[in-house]
Amino acid sequence: MDRDWVLHVMDTVSGFSRGETGITRLALSPEEMQARSYVTGLMQELEMRIRVDAIGNIIGRLEGTDPAAAPVCVGSHLDSVPEGGRYDGVLGVVAGLAAIRRIIKEGHTKHPLELIIFTAEESSRFGFATMGSKAMAGIADLKAWGKAKDSQGIGFLEALAAVGFLPDQIESASRIGEALHAFVELHIEQGPVLEDAGLPIGIVEAIAAPTRLKIRVEGTPGHSGTTPMDSREDALVTAAQIILAVREVALSRYGEGTVGTVGNIKVNPGVMNVIPGLAEMWVDIRGVDHDSIVETVQELKDEISIIAEAEGTTVAIEVLTSDKPVRLHQSVSAAVEQACKDLKVSYRRMNSGAGHDAMHMAALCPTGMIFIPCARGISHNPEEFAAPDDIMTGIDVLTRTLRSLAE
Amino acid sequence: MDRDWVLHVMDTVSGFSRGETGITRLALSPEEMQARSYVTGLMQELEMRIRVDAIGNIIGRLEGTDPAAAPVCVGSHLDSVPEGGRYDGVLGVVAGLAAIRRIIKEGHTKHPLELIIFTAEESSRFGFATMGSKAMAGIADLKAWGKAKDSQGIGFLEALAAVGFLPDQIESASRIGEALHAFVELHIEQGPVLEDAGLPIGIVEAIAAPTRLKIRVEGTPGHSGTTPMDSREDALVTAAQIILAVREVALSRYGEGTVGTVGNIKVNPGVMNVIPGLAEMWVDIRGVDHDSIVETVQELKDEISIIAEAEGTTVAIEVLTSDKPVRLHQSVSAAVEQACKDLKVSYRRMNSGAGHDAMHMAALCPTGMIFIPCARGISHNPEEFAAPDDIMTGIDVLTRTLRSLAE
Repeated sequence: MDRDWVLHVMDTVSGFSRGETGITRLALSPEEMQARSYVTGLMQELEMRIRVDAIGNIIGRLEGTDPAAAPVCVGSHLDSVPEGGRYDGVLGVVAGLAAIRRIIKEGHTKHPLELIIFTAEESSRFGFATMGSKAMAGIADLKAWGKAKDSQGIGFLEALAAVGFLPDQIESASRIGEALHAFVELHIEQGPVLEDAGLPIGIVEAIAAPTRLKIRVEGTPGHSGTTPMDSREDALVTAAQIILAVREVALSRYGEGTVGTVGNIKVNPGVMNVIPGLAEMWVDIRGVDHDSIVETVQELKDEISIIAEAEGTTVAIEVLTSDKPVRLHQSVSAAVEQACKDLKVSYRRMNSGAGHDAMHMAALCPTGMIFIPCARGISHNPEEFAAPDDIMTGIDVLTRTLRSLAE
Repeated sequence: MDRDWVLHVMDTVSGFSRGETGITRLALSPEEMQARSYVTGLMQELEMRIRVDAIGNIIGRLEGTDPAAAPVCVGSHLDSVPEGGRYDGVLGVVAGLAAIRRIIKEGHTKHPLELIIFTAEESSRFGFATMGSKAMAGIADLKAWGKAKDSQGIGFLEALAAVGFLPDQIESASRIGEALHAFVELHIEQGPVLEDAGLPIGIVEAIAAPTRLKIRVEGTPGHSGTTPMDSREDALVTAAQIILAVREVALSRYGEGTVGTVGNIKVNPGVMNVIPGLAEMWVDIRGVDHDSIVETVQELKDEISIIAEAEGTTVAIEVLTSDKPVRLHQSVSAAVEQACKDLKVSYRRMNSGAGHDAMHMAALCPTGMIFIPCARGISHNPEEFAAPDDIMTGIDVLTRTLRSLAE
């Protein structure tokens, strides 16, 4: 049974994990290398031709009936965040393999098919996300990556070399100028939209890009017992108002698909008997409409000025990153939509709030993404769950999409 | 010159410090032991008789003209917080010594005088404050102190033994039942009240006690890009509202002298692309009116319930400590006030927001405190500063107070 095979492969990959809680399979770790070997073995069973590029992206190719045709690519990643879930990334790899397995059984396509397993999609280990797909898209940041280290002090280049990849040839992983016919990535939604709507498929139109701010509030430290309430310049009280302003501003722009989150705050000196003299916050603003993001950030800056002035504190805002949202391609979305219609599967068009390897592949060739629901939108967490029925529906839609693109 | 001697002694004690920033002279550290030796030497020059009790409190005694009279005590501590200032504690010791030095020159009192240097007033090293004065007041918490360790893993009892004190006889440091005539402590205010009012002396009527809460907010972690603004249960957004509620409730009770501070917050997972699932806050509520503190905490709990319900998050409140404020004695305050009047020094009666050794001495004998201003209320900080003129005014008032109490 096809379904049993898929669930067995998913289970087996989940076994390559470190620790007791959830899935920990960091990029280039022994656990990820084991998962790569296992999936590579499955590709070889299907008589796919395997090559690994300099940064460790695995490309498994199934030839089509036309030797001159450009490949239709599908793929995702096998690395995870620490204590993450079983589905993020892995499902896209396994779904791609399952689709190719069906296509082999049901008759080869004209175009070749390629299953790509990207290196280091998660930023957890080295601080940079989607490194493999960036290298493939020719936008490797060799200077910054050369300095990237994990929490153990192991450098990214060192880690690549240690498992036999070629850190000094990363630029050779670029496929710019190569004819690629299309790229499709299947992924769990990582949000609650499909589950809430009771829909099994989301067709991604655009991938949101984050603007990341570091906000530093300087107040005046003082003794918590001896400083009257009306002579305080409490950095944390200012920070609290900024946290609420982030929400208010994002809520007011919600129709534009822009969201805002304060993910972390640190206080100095951070002891019970001292009024906080310093608070630092990390803010993530993202959406698919670049103008909306720019306006949200500006509106937030205006709000912060008002708060800081009223509180007598000093606030500095540093823009850490400001990426542009990526639109995916109508030609691929249309193929996914037609597959849904043919299979009588309900769907909606939607955006992706999270980044994916697909956003870099979109610079190389027509690209699309297929989302399936995950329970309560939870991801990057041991509780991450996708229902087997939804997984199989996703594979049905992916298979039909690949076949139509590759015919 | 008396003034030169005081400033020279203050400077010399400041030299016993570790590191480059501010003063670091942790309890029982080599630096504090050096400061103790230096001050003990000064007491010996004045032919005071020195004894050291089991917990290391140093008691230097100058006999009076009546061998049967109970001693009038003065004192403070020599230990500091990490990267603290030059005045907290030290000034009370040096001022006491300067006062005794004057009294020797100007003619002995009827009652003996004792200068007490208390062990471990700051909680920085072992996690417990005012350990020496607690032991003297017979309220040593032997069970808890037996487990107390510093950040290097050195136990409090071990540290006492290492410098020659007697950890297994701590109870013998109690002076319960012993006739003590009075205790006076001079200290920098550690708040901005005197400086703002342009007054050189504060007479302390009560010492505030802290009620400390740990507030834990549980929300639901989620991806910062994929979770719509209206389906979030963001623990940090709830926490921000609680931080503002602490301020609002404390401001509304300000006339009662009660203040409230959130000194620290920690967020989990605390990464930029995840909505905080957990936020923990440490709150310090203190004042000199116990009923006001109780009502403030209750009002805060009510506010928190409303916030938590509106946000769909769960909030747990743990009361870590809840001490009662300490009233100081009118007989001693009156002596300080008369000294101010005699010397034509302006003053105000006020409360202490910070804890001091005096609050435990108040259980043994009539006790008072004299505050002098410190710049911008800053304490526990390298910028801590008290003006030499204010220091000398404080010593004048202290000397006259001790003489009148000891006559």
